[in-house]
Amino acid sequence: MFSVTVRDHIMIAHSFTGEVFGPAQRLHGATFVVDATFRRPDLDDDNIVVDIGKASEQLHTVCHGLSYRNLDDDPEFTGVNTSTEFLAKIIADRLAVRIHAGEFGRGASGLTGISITLHESHIAWATYERTLR
Amino acid sequence: MFSVTVRDHIMIAHSFTGEVFGPAQRLHGATFVVDATFRRPDLDDDNIVVDIGKASEQLHTVCHGLSYRNLDDDPEFTGVNTSTEFLAKIIADRLAVRIHAGEFGRGASGLTGISITLHESHIAWATYERTLR
Amino acid sequence: MFSVTVRDHIMIAHSFTGEVFGPAQRLHGATFVVDATFRRPDLDDDNIVVDIGKASEQLHTVCHGLSYRNLDDDPEFTGVNTSTEFLAKIIADRLAVRIHAGEFGRGASGLTGISITLHESHIAWATYERTLR
Amino acid sequence: MFSVTVRDHIMIAHSFTGEVFGPAQRLHGATFVVDATFRRPDLDDDNIVVDIGKASEQLHTVCHGLSYRNLDDDPEFTGVNTSTEFLAKIIADRLAVRIHAGEFGRGASGLTGISITLHESHIAWATYERTLR
Amino acid sequence: MFSVTVRDHIMIAHSFTGEVFGPAQRLHGATFVVDATFRRPDLDDDNIVVDIGKASEQLHTVCHGLSYRNLDDDPEFTGVNTSTEFLAKIIADRLAVRIHAGEFGRGASGLTGISITLHESHIAWATYERTLR
Amino acid sequence: MFSVTVRDHIMIAHSFTGEVFGPAQRLHGATFVVDATFRRPDLDDDNIVVDIGKASEQLHTVCHGLSYRNLDDDPEFTGVNTSTEFLAKIIADRLAVRIHAGEFGRGASGLTGISITLHESHIAWATYERTLR
Repeated sequence: MFSVTVRDHIMIAHSFTGEVFGPAQRLHGATFVVDATFRRPDLDDDNIVVDIGKASEQLHTVCHGLSYRNLDDDPEFTGVNTSTEFLAKIIADRLAVRIHAGEFGRGASGLTGISITLHESHIAWATYERTLR
Repeated sequence: MFSVTVRDHIMIAHSFTGEVFGPAQRLHGATFVVDATFRRPDLDDDNIVVDIGKASEQLHTVCHGLSYRNLDDDPEFTGVNTSTEFLAKIIADRLAVRIHAGEFGRGASGLTGISITLHESHIAWATYERTLR
Repeated sequence: MFSVTVRDHIMIAHSFTGEVFGPAQRLHGATFVVDATFRRPDLDDDNIVVDIGKASEQLHTVCHGLSYRNLDDDPEFTGVNTSTEFLAKIIADRLAVRIHAGEFGRGASGLTGISITLHESHIAWATYERTLR
Repeated sequence: MFSVTVRDHIMIAHSFTGEVFGPAQRLHGATFVVDATFRRPDLDDDNIVVDIGKASEQLHTVCHGLSYRNLDDDPEFTGVNTSTEFLAKIIADRLAVRIHAGEFGRGASGLTGISITLHESHIAWATYERTLR
Repeated sequence: MFSVTVRDHIMIAHSFTGEVFGPAQRLHGATFVVDATFRRPDLDDDNIVVDIGKASEQLHTVCHGLSYRNLDDDPEFTGVNTSTEFLAKIIADRLAVRIHAGEFGRGASGLTGISITLHESHIAWATYERTLR
Repeated sequence: MFSVTVRDHIMIAHSFTGEVFGPAQRLHGATFVVDATFRRPDLDDDNIVVDIGKASEQLHTVCHGLSYRNLDDDPEFTGVNTSTEFLAKIIADRLAVRIHAGEFGRGASGLTGISITLHESHIAWATYERTLR
C-alpha cells in the first residue's frame, strides 16, 4: 500500500457545549496543523499516488473554507461540537467530494482511502480515516 | 475510524541482558516521549473520541508510575529486558486496565483500540498496538 | 552563557484591526506553543540555571491566565492587536514580574535574561527577548 | 502488534517526466529523511522486535547505495520516475531482501511487515507498506 | 528585541568541488527547509514586526528563484560551492534587497536584522545572520 | 555571522543531589538529543563553516564517551550534579579542546564560537554557549 501526505493549517475560533470540555466551553481558538494522507494499492502511470500539486491546492482550498473564522457562527456547525476529531472528518469528507468530482485529476480515480490528522498542540492530535469507494 | 493522541514522557534508568544490546548492557537511561492513541469507529454523544482531559491525566498517572526510576530495581521487571517496545506494551496494558475500570469516564466505553509509541531519540521509536475488547 | 527552556501552550480566540491583517481581521483563533528560555552567565550552587519544576509551574500559571479565552474581551488588551510578537512580550513580562517576586526560588536571582517564542503554526513563530535586570 | 522504527536520510538529484510534475521536470534534488518501520505480532526471546543496531546499519547501507547520486544516471531507474513513493518501495524491497538473507540476524525471522516513509519537506511525505512473508 | 520567522523550502541539485566534500562532490541534491527571521527592537504601529503575509510571499518568491534547479547550471554560482551556509547568505541578501526596495511594505523600514536557517536534513542545518542597516 | 549545526544523541543514567531536584534525586536516566553549533564570521576557502563530516565524527566521538553509562560512576563527575545545562558545557568544552587540537581540520581555525543544546524531552532543553578564542 502506498500513501502520500501533504500538510497545511487552519486557525479558527470556537466554543464547546458539555461539561466534559471544562474551560474549553468558553470561546477560544486553535491552530490545527492539517495532514492529509491519500492511499492506494498501486501507483498510477506517472509512478505516483496523486498529483501532489493538485492535492496541496485542494487541501488549501478546503482549509481556506474553514480558516480565520469563528466556527460557532457557521450555519453548517450549529449545535455541533467542532472537536478536533469532528473537524478531521469534515476535512476528509470535503476532500472526498472533490476527489470524486475529478478535482484531483484523472489519476486520482485510483485512490482508495484518505486520512486526516489535525494537530492541535505539541501534545495532542486527532485522526479520521475513511475509504474512498 | 477516529483516534485521539496525547503526549507525555518518562525518564528512566535501566540495563539490558543479551549480546544483541551491545553497550546498552551497561546501566544507562532514556527519555521516552510517550504518545498514547485512543481509537473508536464512531464519536460519542459529545462528538469526541475520549475526554482528552481525563486521557491526559490517566497517561500522566501511568507515566508517573514508571518515571524517575531505575527499572532494574522494579520487582515487576525482574529478569525482563525493559526494551522500548516492551515498555510500550506495559503502558498500553496499564491504560487498558484503567479504561475498563471506568477511569476515562462513561464515554470511553466506546473505545476499541489503543496504540502507544515511545520515542527514545530523534532516530528511533517503537509502537505497540492492541484492541480494547 | 547558559540557558534552559521549557514548553507549554495556550489556545485563544482574537481578531485584529488593520488592513495589514487581511482575513485575520475576522474573529479566529490560534494555538500558541510557548517556549520560555531563561538565561544566566553562570550556574547556581545546584549546578542549574533555574529550578525547572518551578519554571514549568510558573509558565503554566501565566499560560493558564491567557488560555481558553477570547482576548478581544480582556480589558487589558482593549484596542490592542494581540499579535504573536506582542503576546510573546506579555508572557515574558509576566514571567519577569514573577521572577522578581521570588516565585522561581532563591537561585533564580542570578537570571539575567528571558526569551519567549510563540509558535503559531508549522510555518510561523515569533520571539521576544529581554533582560531581567 | 509491535513495531520499531529507525531514521536515516539520503540526498539525491533527479528529474521527472510528465506534465503532472510541473517545474520538477527540471533536474533538481531532494533530501529524503527515511523512516524504516519493522513489524511483528510478538517480541523475540530478547524482548525486542529487531536488533536495532543491525536495523540501523542495514538501513544505512541501503541509503548509502542511493545517496549523493543523480538517480537519472542509475541504470536501474532508466525510464522510471523516481518519485518519493516509488523510492519508498525501492528501499522497502531492498530491506526485505536483506532481512530474508539473514542480514538482520536470527531474531528477524519473526518480522511480518515493513513500512518506509520518505519525508521530502516539512509539508510532504510518502509511505510504502508491505508484508515480509 | 522582537522577531518573526516564516518557513518555506527549496529542492535543488548541485555538486561540490574540494576533497573536504567527499561523496558530495558528485551531483546530488537537497531539500532545504528555509526559516527566515526578521528582527527589530520595537513593534510597528500595527503591533507587529512585519506584515507576515508579505514576508511569506517575498520568501516564497526568493525560494522560487532557486528551487527545482541544478545550481551548477546557474551562471551566478559558477565556480562557487553552493554550500548550505552560502545559500543561507544568498537568501538573506536577496531578502534584504527586497526589504530595502519596499517590497515588505512601509512598516518594514523598522527592521534591523535578518537570519536565514537552512535545514538540510534532520541532523544538519546552517544559519546566516546579518544586519539590515 | 555564519553557523553550522549537527545533531547526535546520548543515553545516560544519573541521579541528582539537592531538594530542588525532587523525584530526580532518584537514579533515573535521559536521552539527550545533542545539537552542536559552530560559528564564524566568514566562510573558509571551501565556502563552508566547518568540514561537516569531521564535525559529525567529532561530536559522535564526544557523545560516545558519555553514552550508555551511569554518570554517577564517572570519576570526573564525582560530587557534581550532571544537570542538562552542565552536560551541555562538558560537551562544548570537549569539542573546543578537539578543535584547538586540530581534529576538525585546518579550516576550523577560523571558528569563533560554539553552542551546545541538549534536548531532554519534548518540553525541556538547555544550551551552553562559549567563544573559541
